[in-house]
Amino acid sequence: MIKAGIIGATGYAGGELVRILLGHKDVEIKWYGSKSYIDKKYSEIYQNMFELVEDVCLDDNMEKLADQVDVIFTATPQGFCASLLNEKILSQVKIVDLSADYRIKDVQTYEKWYGIEHKSPQFLEEAVYGLCEINREKIKQARLVANPGCYPTCSVLSVYPLAKEGLIDLSTLIIDAKSGTSGAGRGAKVANLYCEVNENIKAYGVASHRHTPEIEEQLSYASGESVVLNFTPHLVPMNRGILVTAYANLKRRIDENGCQVLPTEEEIREVYRKYYEKEKFVRFLNPGVCPETRWVEGSNYVDVNVRVDERTGRVIMMGAMDNLVKGAAGQAVQNMNLLFGLPEEEGLRLVPMFP
Amino acid sequence: MIKAGIIGATGYAGGELVRILLGHKDVEIKWYGSKSYIDKKYSEIYQNMFELVEDVCLDDNMEKLADQVDVIFTATPQGFCASLLNEKILSQVKIVDLSADYRIKDVQTYEKWYGIEHKSPQFLEEAVYGLCEINREKIKQARLVANPGCYPTCSVLSVYPLAKEGLIDLSTLIIDAKSGTSGAGRGAKVANLYCEVNENIKAYGVASHRHTPEIEEQLSYASGESVVLNFTPHLVPMNRGILVTAYANLKRRIDENGCQVLPTEEEIREVYRKYYEKEKFVRFLNPGVCPETRWVEGSNYVDVNVRVDERTGRVIMMGAMDNLVKGAAGQAVQNMNLLFGLPEEEGLRLVPMFP
Amino acid sequence: MIKAGIIGATGYAGGELVRILLGHKDVEIKWYGSKSYIDKKYSEIYQNMFELVEDVCLDDNMEKLADQVDVIFTATPQGFCASLLNEKILSQVKIVDLSADYRIKDVQTYEKWYGIEHKSPQFLEEAVYGLCEINREKIKQARLVANPGCYPTCSVLSVYPLAKEGLIDLSTLIIDAKSGTSGAGRGAKVANLYCEVNENIKAYGVASHRHTPEIEEQLSYASGESVVLNFTPHLVPMNRGILVTAYANLKRRIDENGCQVLPTEEEIREVYRKYYEKEKFVRFLNPGVCPETRWVEGSNYVDVNVRVDERTGRVIMMGAMDNLVKGAAGQAVQNMNLLFGLPEEEGLRLVPMFP
Amino acid sequence: MIKAGIIGATGYAGGELVRILLGHKDVEIKWYGSKSYIDKKYSEIYQNMFELVEDVCLDDNMEKLADQVDVIFTATPQGFCASLLNEKILSQVKIVDLSADYRIKDVQTYEKWYGIEHKSPQFLEEAVYGLCEINREKIKQARLVANPGCYPTCSVLSVYPLAKEGLIDLSTLIIDAKSGTSGAGRGAKVANLYCEVNENIKAYGVASHRHTPEIEEQLSYASGESVVLNFTPHLVPMNRGILVTAYANLKRRIDENGCQVLPTEEEIREVYRKYYEKEKFVRFLNPGVCPETRWVEGSNYVDVNVRVDERTGRVIMMGAMDNLVKGAAGQAVQNMNLLFGLPEEEGLRLVPMFP
Repeated sequence: MIKAGIIGATGYAGGELVRILLGHKDVEIKWYGSKSYIDKKYSEIYQNMFELVEDVCLDDNMEKLADQVDVIFTATPQGFCASLLNEKILSQVKIVDLSADYRIKDVQTYEKWYGIEHKSPQFLEEAVYGLCEINREKIKQARLVANPGCYPTCSVLSVYPLAKEGLIDLSTLIIDAKSGTSGAGRGAKVANLYCEVNENIKAYGVASHRHTPEIEEQLSYASGESVVLNFTPHLVPMNRGILVTAYANLKRRIDENGCQVLPTEEEIREVYRKYYEKEKFVRFLNPGVCPETRWVEGSNYVDVNVRVDERTGRVIMMGAMDNLVKGAAGQAVQNMNLLFGLPEEEGLRLVPMFP
Repeated sequence: MIKAGIIGATGYAGGELVRILLGHKDVEIKWYGSKSYIDKKYSEIYQNMFELVEDVCLDDNMEKLADQVDVIFTATPQGFCASLLNEKILSQVKIVDLSADYRIKDVQTYEKWYGIEHKSPQFLEEAVYGLCEINREKIKQARLVANPGCYPTCSVLSVYPLAKEGLIDLSTLIIDAKSGTSGAGRGAKVANLYCEVNENIKAYGVASHRHTPEIEEQLSYASGESVVLNFTPHLVPMNRGILVTAYANLKRRIDENGCQVLPTEEEIREVYRKYYEKEKFVRFLNPGVCPETRWVEGSNYVDVNVRVDERTGRVIMMGAMDNLVKGAAGQAVQNMNLLFGLPEEEGLRLVPMFP
Repeated sequence: MIKAGIIGATGYAGGELVRILLGHKDVEIKWYGSKSYIDKKYSEIYQNMFELVEDVCLDDNMEKLADQVDVIFTATPQGFCASLLNEKILSQVKIVDLSADYRIKDVQTYEKWYGIEHKSPQFLEEAVYGLCEINREKIKQARLVANPGCYPTCSVLSVYPLAKEGLIDLSTLIIDAKSGTSGAGRGAKVANLYCEVNENIKAYGVASHRHTPEIEEQLSYASGESVVLNFTPHLVPMNRGILVTAYANLKRRIDENGCQVLPTEEEIREVYRKYYEKEKFVRFLNPGVCPETRWVEGSNYVDVNVRVDERTGRVIMMGAMDNLVKGAAGQAVQNMNLLFGLPEEEGLRLVPMFP
Repeated sequence: MIKAGIIGATGYAGGELVRILLGHKDVEIKWYGSKSYIDKKYSEIYQNMFELVEDVCLDDNMEKLADQVDVIFTATPQGFCASLLNEKILSQVKIVDLSADYRIKDVQTYEKWYGIEHKSPQFLEEAVYGLCEINREKIKQARLVANPGCYPTCSVLSVYPLAKEGLIDLSTLIIDAKSGTSGAGRGAKVANLYCEVNENIKAYGVASHRHTPEIEEQLSYASGESVVLNFTPHLVPMNRGILVTAYANLKRRIDENGCQVLPTEEEIREVYRKYYEKEKFVRFLNPGVCPETRWVEGSNYVDVNVRVDERTGRVIMMGAMDNLVKGAAGQAVQNMNLLFGLPEEEGLRLVPMFP
């Protein structure tokens, strides 16, 4: 039985970790960390856990926690994990950090986009970016996993095969993303009140959202090029779900007659199948089917599809997932499974719930 | 391995049955019946099942189905199951009927409220009303289970302890219920379009809703009285969930000084604990906590609580559940478990999903 | 041109006052009071007012304001208006108080239910309860109008004709109400976040909501009896709207044969027509039509209807309105029109917006 | 008094026309055409109109209608208006067609994208595209106005200044749009049921939506180039509103040092101000403020803003409007005002309603 501790257990991602881990046969949660609710019963904050969780919330003491558990999940604000992590902790437990602290290798990029000082850059090199479908083998060996951001997970998985195979002009890549409101967290802000979000859609963080450099870095690794792109998130009046609509110019190849021709949609589909047909959690949809967030709700799936537009020479790449599962807690458990040599899908055979 | 067939597999309750049975280790779905989508892949109608269900939809042939499976779930409109059921089928398979056909013992009451002729009243006496918490032992012996309606499940479980113990004046009972829109089914009607339901609340079926006689019958059994009550359902702009708010006058007792006194809230609570403390799927909440549908979403729980109003001498009884789970598919599986001697909660350890 | 000042202009009711007054040909808003946003442009808080309102928010200085305007609307928390009002102010301007400070005549009842001391009980007797359809003539003569609460407005207007005519047993009256989330205000609280309210319904303030004594007082005036009732509000995932479903036993009368008989639905309807057929803002619906909040959204209407249930001898009384209009800002303007001798519907000919 | 007839009065756009025209002091609606509801009272279909509209629905008889009114609004499916229009009708009344029949000048393009034959191509040349801000003078002289599509209105107005001034590379233009569900109409389809739309976002019509050639045509006129672009609409779980997020590469100019430089955001803003500062219904927002659909709900405004991304050399152009007002009925009334020489904003001084 793996003993797990969660720091930040009362945020939405923390709550989802609890939901998933309660159904994981090899894990026992030993520590519900929540600075805001110390000594309060967890099930009084999340009444869905009534009669399921009897524990009270504990303080966010990472050193003490490291003595008691095998893995720590940090579902905390940026900077928190980086400020507490040290070699002693890392030598005792595995860390899956759901914050952005170890996702970006370049400390200056991190500090510029996040506007805070990085308190433990010495672990950046060691940390593995936990996008399981791409870094599976590295994760298995890791002590510290940087669980990917929600938008980056969906964006990178939607674009990856064509970036990797060099089939698109990455300088033309534009990612227009839409997220449910749980991505905004459980903080009490006027902007996230029901009446402010309901019956509305807006873009936010235009040309400045922090997930931009994370996506750029991962696609740069995939392509071997330095990728700079536009990423625009939008807030959608729904609880869960992220949808990515990405656009890029297809590279043309020279055919037998010396003409520049576009790859066909079927050629493009073949590439996606190559990368994803063995992936349990990436479902490459049938031709013509658009990913929709409702079909993945509550599950660890990312649904992906593509459409070639011959009129414009562009490919439209689409992905849908549940931001709290594959975009946070589910992927964190997938990473934990890899870290501990368990079947990757253990505890994650969640059938999407509709409606 | 229990072989199961679902007739009406493409309605919302049918879809939820599929979701739950896919996670049930002792069941295999052999027949996805759907007259509207014969020969179409099930996962093309419910894309959440992509790569999870490979079957195509089959016709609603109950006799043929009875040869191939151990249990049939009928998630079909009123009258359908009654029109096809016969002794031969019943001798071959267990039937869990999610329609109203066998819920009401009196055929005239059924025909009056539903406005259709009952085609097989000969099975009414045999059929067991599948409210597991109340009829558990009878269900275990049954061939034909009438799965309770969504509103009746939540209403009866909210009121049952006080009706059974004779603590309320049942002639004063009023049930004001609120339901999410999945209860209205998947039929293409203008009244159920997004823009008609969203940003709206309304009562419907006032003094005439078909679940009224079902609730009255069950509470009459519980109390030994003939119960006539007001039941008013309302349509709420949300996908899932039923909330019941019920009101009744508390009976006063004579105290040592010869005064008429109300029972205290704690005395009332003690009664609820007596009935529900061993029930896995009924959670009697802590004092002062109101049931909310969000805390049971996706699970088989009914959350129940009570409040005594000393000013008016009434008790307010409240219940919340997921109409598609405990109110339909979950309870059907709970009934199936009882029918086949499995642990009652097999496949139903569903942690409520929030948000 | 009437000069108006709004204290509390950046709450939802305050914002709705601005929307309505901008369309009122006889009014000019001179003061946008908002302690939280002093010196900030009003249209930066409510971007819908961009290019429509150029003013900045001012402090909540009631005395200074009284020098500059003809009418002050206080859309402020309980206790605020009562703490600042004095004879000098009242001698200068008309006051329409949207808080509860002057709604309840008995100061002890106010202090008990609201949990605060009343700072100016000397004005309670003078204040007129601003339910225009009932107190029209008194309002015309008033200096200080207590604008009714949202739930009380809808509840009282739904029940009034039968209470006034003595046709129901008021000791059996139960009011089950449902409200959109704008009624909870614009304060930054976790409980009102999008993800907490969406996909949920709950009761709150069970047997303890502050609008209870206000409804009881008004129905006591109507009936000449001392009314004690159950009032249960529920929170609905929508922006605007209140729906009231009220239940009471009809009084039976003795017919020519000496039998106790119920009034017919048509007899009951005749009573409602008597009270409402000349009322512009109360629409008594056709037989069988249930009020729905969507049909009154954005308007000053209350839609009312009744249903007699012969089985139980009860009448179900239903009302729907927009909580921010007839339940707050619209009724405040209706009161202002009466105070200043304007046509009662001036600025309030708002056609409900659907969808 | 202008006499108006509406064909298709019971669709969402038709209903909005009724709402707006009821508040227009110079117009009287004489004909509520609705093939589906002939002889039924209009206010029984749209209960918001109870006591406001006493008329019954009439058949869609355009010739008969032309005898009785001054202007006909056709809020009907594609092909309807084109199939009935003739010279006699046009000589009698003004026509504002809310369908796509006369928006696209090239009949082959229309027939290819809409998949139907055009029945009266002889009027295509005469018809004026009713985007008032751009074609104001032509509209004043017209007999037949093609009221623009909802997506094209928002898209063209968001991009127009930069297209017109030649500041963007139109071959890189990508328009990612999001719409509320009223845009899908009031037809009874499973795909538009509450439970199918709620808690979901999806793209649809990818690389194939019919509004694409309409946008391309208008931007081609503006720029003098042949524009081919990607347009992707998404369905958002809300009633009203369209948001456009458009991306294009800025053209670089050579500065005094011979370097290629991007225009600054302020230079771009200056261009938008030039085109829109006198436009009542286009609000060009302050720097850094993103358009949101909630701020324009119920009004005829389009809120527009831009952001220059120096990292990528692109400009992000954003627009938000109410699809039923500026995207349909409101713009139709704006066109009518121009046709009849009324002030352009008559009946359209609608303050956006929030929340």
